[in-house]
Amino acid sequence: MKDIMTNLPTFDDMLAAHDRIAPYIHRTPILTSSYLNELTGAELFFKCENFQKAGAFKVRGASNAVFGLSDEVAAKGVATHSSGNHALSLSYAAGRRGIPCHVVMPRTAPQAKKDAVRGYGGIITECEPSTSSREEVFARIHAETGADFVHPYNDPRVIAGQGTCSRELMEQTDGLDAVIAPIGGGGMISGTCLTMSHLAPEVAIYAAEPEQADDAYRSFKAGHIIADDAPVTIADGLKVPLKENTWHFVSNHVTDIFTASEEEIIAAMKLTWQRMKIIIEASCAVPLATIIKNPETFRGKRVGVIITGGNVDLDTLPWIN
Amino acid sequence: MKDIMTNLPTFDDMLAAHDRIAPYIHRTPILTSSYLNELTGAELFFKCENFQKAGAFKVRGASNAVFGLSDEVAAKGVATHSSGNHALSLSYAAGRRGIPCHVVMPRTAPQAKKDAVRGYGGIITECEPSTSSREEVFARIHAETGADFVHPYNDPRVIAGQGTCSRELMEQTDGLDAVIAPIGGGGMISGTCLTMSHLAPEVAIYAAEPEQADDAYRSFKAGHIIADDAPVTIADGLKVPLKENTWHFVSNHVTDIFTASEEEIIAAMKLTWQRMKIIIEASCAVPLATIIKNPETFRGKRVGVIITGGNVDLDTLPWIN
Repeated sequence: MKDIMTNLPTFDDMLAAHDRIAPYIHRTPILTSSYLNELTGAELFFKCENFQKAGAFKVRGASNAVFGLSDEVAAKGVATHSSGNHALSLSYAAGRRGIPCHVVMPRTAPQAKKDAVRGYGGIITECEPSTSSREEVFARIHAETGADFVHPYNDPRVIAGQGTCSRELMEQTDGLDAVIAPIGGGGMISGTCLTMSHLAPEVAIYAAEPEQADDAYRSFKAGHIIADDAPVTIADGLKVPLKENTWHFVSNHVTDIFTASEEEIIAAMKLTWQRMKIIIEASCAVPLATIIKNPETFRGKRVGVIITGGNVDLDTLPWIN
Repeated sequence: MKDIMTNLPTFDDMLAAHDRIAPYIHRTPILTSSYLNELTGAELFFKCENFQKAGAFKVRGASNAVFGLSDEVAAKGVATHSSGNHALSLSYAAGRRGIPCHVVMPRTAPQAKKDAVRGYGGIITECEPSTSSREEVFARIHAETGADFVHPYNDPRVIAGQGTCSRELMEQTDGLDAVIAPIGGGGMISGTCLTMSHLAPEVAIYAAEPEQADDAYRSFKAGHIIADDAPVTIADGLKVPLKENTWHFVSNHVTDIFTASEEEIIAAMKLTWQRMKIIIEASCAVPLATIIKNPETFRGKRVGVIITGGNVDLDTLPWIN
C-alpha cells in the first residue's frame, strides 16, 4: 500500500476530479424552503446530495478514487472497511468501472446494509465487531487481493472528490455568505474547505456535529485531534474521528463548529421531511438543527446547506416509538 | 353563486392561468431514477408537485381562481368544503392575496389537517361528518359571507390551473410518449387533457386509481359517471367522484385507466421514498404501482409521471405497524 495518506489534495486535484467523475454522478439540485427561511431568518440553499447516486455525496470521492486508478492497479480492485455510505459508494463506482470492490464489515452490521452493498456489487468479508478483528481481516483481504485501499475520508482522492460538491453549490447559487455541512471524519468539510478557500475565501465554513459525538468540536477548541470513545448518536454517519488530512483542513479553514442534541437533530430531520418533502438522514439534519439554534450567526445570511445523504431505514424512524 | 360549473375551460384559459399564477407557485423540478427506469423498462420523468407551494399541485388551480377574481368579488373572500390539499391550497392563495378563505370541515377531521389549514390562514367552520350537515353549513357560510365558491376540481378555473402542470412537464422534457396521473375527482387529469390535447395530442394520457375507489375506472368503462359509495383506501385524495366537467375531459381524452391494490400502492410509495428520497402521498404512488403492474403498456416508453403531493402524516406510515 503506497503512502498516500500524508499528501494533501490541491485545488487542481478537485478540478481534475470533477472532470473525471462527471459521467458517474448527478449534478444534484438546490432546493429552497420559504418556510425554513422564515423560521431561521436566513436564506437557505440546500444542496441535495440525498439525490446523488448511491444516495450520498460519498460517491464523489469514491468515484474519483476508482476512476483515477491505472488499468493495472484497477484490475486488482479496491477495498475498504465501512458499513455506511462509503461502502455503498465505492461498490457503485467499482461496479461502473467493472472492477471488484472488497468491503470488510462487522458480521453484526444490519442485514439491510449488507444487502445494499451487495446490491451495488460489493464483495463483503465479515469480521467480528471489534477494531482488532476489522484490522486483521482487512489486512488479510488487502494482502490477498492487492486491491487499492480507499479510506472513507482521509484519502486525498476522496477529499478532492467531495470538494466537487461545493464547486457545484457555488455555480448553482448567486453568492453565499456561509456554507455548513455535517462533520464526522471530516471528508465533506475538508473538500468544502479545499474548494471554498480557492473559489470564495470570504465565505464562512461551519461544521455541525452531534453533541453526543462532539470530537471534532472538542478537537477544534483544543487545537489537536481528540477522538471519541464509542460515541452513541442517531447521526450514525458522524461517529468517526478526524484524521491528519481532514484535521489539516478543519484546523486551517473552518470558521466554527456547532453542536446539536439528539432531540434537536430528530426535530430538524422530521421538519425537513415535513416541509421540504425530502428524505434525509439524521446526519444531514444536524446543520439545520444548529442553524435554528444559533440565529445570531445565520440571520440575514445566504447559507449553503449540504444535505449529505438519504439512506434511511424507513421501517424504524426515530420519531415513531 | 354564478353558475360556472357547466362552462369548460379552454386552452387559452390555461395559458392565462399560467401567467396569472406564476408569481405564487413553484416551477417544480423533474426527477428521474435509473433504478425505477430499470425496474419498469420505461423512462420515467417525475414532475414533483410534492415540492409545490402548500405541498400539492392543487395550489395551481386554487391560485388561478383566487387571483382571477375582481377586487370587488375578492373582497368577500373565497370558500370551499374540503379537508385535504385543496383547503390548504385555497387558504395559501387567499393569504397571498390578503382575502379571507372559509373552509367547512367535519369536526372529526384530523387535528393536523385543521392546524395546517389554519397555518395558511384559513378560517374553519366545523360541520358534522355527514353530507347533509356539510351542505347545510356550507350554504350558511356561503350566504353569510358572499364568498366565491371554489370547487376542488369541477371548477373550470381550477381545471385550467391544474393544466399548467403538464405544460411545464412538456417544456421540461424532450418529448414524451405518455403522461400518467392519479385520478380522484379528475381535476389534475382534466387539466392534463386540456393542455396535452392542444400541445401534444399524440401523447397517451393514463389515469391511475385505487382498486378500492375505482369509480373513475368503472365510469370510463361504462360510458357514464358512476359514484362510489364511501370508498376506503389509503389514497385518501382519490375518494371523490367525477363531476360533469371532469367527466367531459376523462371521457374524451383519456387513453385508459389502470387500478392498483392497497398493497401495490403502499409498496410503490415506500419504493419511491427509498429510491428517490422524496416524500410522496399514497395517492401519487398509484401511477407508479400501475406502471409496474402493466409493463406491456409502458416498456420502452418515455412517461411523464405526475407526483401530485407530499402532505403525509409522518407519525403513521402505512408500512409501520
